[in-house]
Amino acid sequence: MLKRYLLAPGPTPVPHEVLLAMAAPIIHHRSPEFIPILAQAKEDLKWLFQTQQDVLILTSTGTGGMVAAVTNFLSPGDKAICIRGGKFGERWTEICNAYGIVPVNIDVEWGTAVDPQKVEDALKADPEVKAVYVQACETSTGVMHPTKEIAEICRKREGTICVVDAITAAGVFDLPMDSWGLDVVVTGSQKALMLPPGLGFVAASEKAWALNKTSKTPRYYFNLAKERKKLAENQTNFTSAASLIVGLKAALEMMKKEGLSGIFARHDRLARATRAGVQAMGLGLFAKVPSPALTAVKVPEGIDGGDVTKCLRDTYAVTVAGGQDTLKGRIFRLAHMGYFDTFDVIVGLSATEMTMKDLGAPVALGKGVAAAEEILARGKGA
Amino acid sequence: MLKRYLLAPGPTPVPHEVLLAMAAPIIHHRSPEFIPILAQAKEDLKWLFQTQQDVLILTSTGTGGMVAAVTNFLSPGDKAICIRGGKFGERWTEICNAYGIVPVNIDVEWGTAVDPQKVEDALKADPEVKAVYVQACETSTGVMHPTKEIAEICRKREGTICVVDAITAAGVFDLPMDSWGLDVVVTGSQKALMLPPGLGFVAASEKAWALNKTSKTPRYYFNLAKERKKLAENQTNFTSAASLIVGLKAALEMMKKEGLSGIFARHDRLARATRAGVQAMGLGLFAKVPSPALTAVKVPEGIDGGDVTKCLRDTYAVTVAGGQDTLKGRIFRLAHMGYFDTFDVIVGLSATEMTMKDLGAPVALGKGVAAAEEILARGKGA
Repeated sequence: MLKRYLLAPGPTPVPHEVLLAMAAPIIHHRSPEFIPILAQAKEDLKWLFQTQQDVLILTSTGTGGMVAAVTNFLSPGDKAICIRGGKFGERWTEICNAYGIVPVNIDVEWGTAVDPQKVEDALKADPEVKAVYVQACETSTGVMHPTKEIAEICRKREGTICVVDAITAAGVFDLPMDSWGLDVVVTGSQKALMLPPGLGFVAASEKAWALNKTSKTPRYYFNLAKERKKLAENQTNFTSAASLIVGLKAALEMMKKEGLSGIFARHDRLARATRAGVQAMGLGLFAKVPSPALTAVKVPEGIDGGDVTKCLRDTYAVTVAGGQDTLKGRIFRLAHMGYFDTFDVIVGLSATEMTMKDLGAPVALGKGVAAAEEILARGKGA
Repeated sequence: MLKRYLLAPGPTPVPHEVLLAMAAPIIHHRSPEFIPILAQAKEDLKWLFQTQQDVLILTSTGTGGMVAAVTNFLSPGDKAICIRGGKFGERWTEICNAYGIVPVNIDVEWGTAVDPQKVEDALKADPEVKAVYVQACETSTGVMHPTKEIAEICRKREGTICVVDAITAAGVFDLPMDSWGLDVVVTGSQKALMLPPGLGFVAASEKAWALNKTSKTPRYYFNLAKERKKLAENQTNFTSAASLIVGLKAALEMMKKEGLSGIFARHDRLARATRAGVQAMGLGLFAKVPSPALTAVKVPEGIDGGDVTKCLRDTYAVTVAGGQDTLKGRIFRLAHMGYFDTFDVIVGLSATEMTMKDLGAPVALGKGVAAAEEILARGKGA
């Protein structure tokens, strides 16, 4: 018997309340039973995104949302700044290239956050740039980019929108769309929303919708103007992924009970405990500006990162993520995003301690756990 | 207490075995637990499509599959025949228009099937046409188009592929991809596959893959060549919709137990019983060449079709589909596709009889049910 733990930065565990809600008999997406479910989810998504705009619901992964965020607002030949500090930053460039949008890449060393001044300089150097694409959290490195500052820079420019990949950010840390002036915000279902993969979400500001009117990039499946019109009638443009939307309503209900400030405080606490634990056991943090969504841990010298994730998985039944692309073998990533609490952090740290021992790395057993407990203890004495 | 029945042509009911499989804790899509599940589903999909080609799995609705089927094989400026005999035929034209492919429309009266001679003539008149887009079953009218004959016409032409929307056909009636020479076949999860909406499926012949090499239509999320490469490693290009794929494996297991010939015979039997029942109660069939997937019923003179679907739904808790676009109010559609058996047909016919009585249409109670029972009786005396 292996009792399994999913501690990867997506998909994340789905609460049993949500799993059971989705296991109910399927309902028709144009029926009177479904409409109030979608209407409730729609309202609660606005709460989550902190926006007055409707949050459009796509049947796709988060990448589908990113494609929608590019193809609905710009046209072939338009220029866009892509902040590339990891695999998902590179994805912006790939999407631009696929649709004839000209990427102006700002390359950032993986593990570091972009300097907003570089964005400002690039916009000055190239005033025609119509969009800045950024990750609020770059999942491949665990870095949090300065979204607020980048949004402020875009806000000063009439013709430039700030487009934010919030796939591992929405519902993790504060990212108020309207008050920060984020123009397009994208997320996916399988992260902080505690759902299986299969839904993408996109919200857009009036500034972005104005660009949508002139955008000539071909699109059909991801047509946000049509989705907006349909969502006003509590429908989606094509068949709704009804079971996932039933789960979405249930997950958002759980999130509303905790409240945004509670959710953000929990993620912050779990992230701090994880970072403290990792460092206390003698391992290094990879991200210079770490996100509360996940912690990227440096694999110690002389150890193969592949062995770390394999030992965690095969010996301790703990699924984490390794490094991607150039980071393969060099880092592993412990998530603390979504349906995570105190003992998910403890399990992750304890499994890491034992794995390091097994692989012959010089870690002191229990030290990581102890450091995390210092932060996680919440009783009277805390 | 209202006990609900879902008799619409998608989404269709999901068997409880499948619902429970999907309610299991989420598993990571790159983990060793998931790989064999995807591998099994991949093999079983080939069985379902009757093809040696891999059937690619997309996180999207069936429409996403249709977009993939257009954008991965043709280029802007290419011509394609779109057979338009209903709402989904029109969708081919819309997708072509969105991507700069030039549609050559063959308009077919709604409710009738296309004459293959017209396709042959159109191809002779316009030898540059690179694809013929057709619905194996046009869900909006309940018509079955002559897919086999159209495929034969395309087969004789080196540069023309036959692209089939099999969204309400795959797993309903015989549509052997390889032996008929279908070049691209598309389906979705929420029909005969007995799953919630959220997965699209596309398989392509070598003739189609050859066109893929020169196709210049922009694409990123629906990139079939990348999906093909990834599926060879039992992965999907982006995050897999893991819970739906777990359900897919379970649904395909059920289907394999019944066998293709058993599945097709069941659908044929239920369709014949439904049609006999509808006619016996004095109502007319809308489709001249009716599909075994669903039966489109003409609303009697003097009755509003909206009242029929509303009465069925609100009084008898039976969800069927009304007519779409120009057929709104003129037909209603009873499905018998996927997880349907004898008493789903009986429920649909009985509810229709009572609804017609309630609305003042001259139907004889019990006559439709009796006619269906003649066909559905399977005991020793049958």
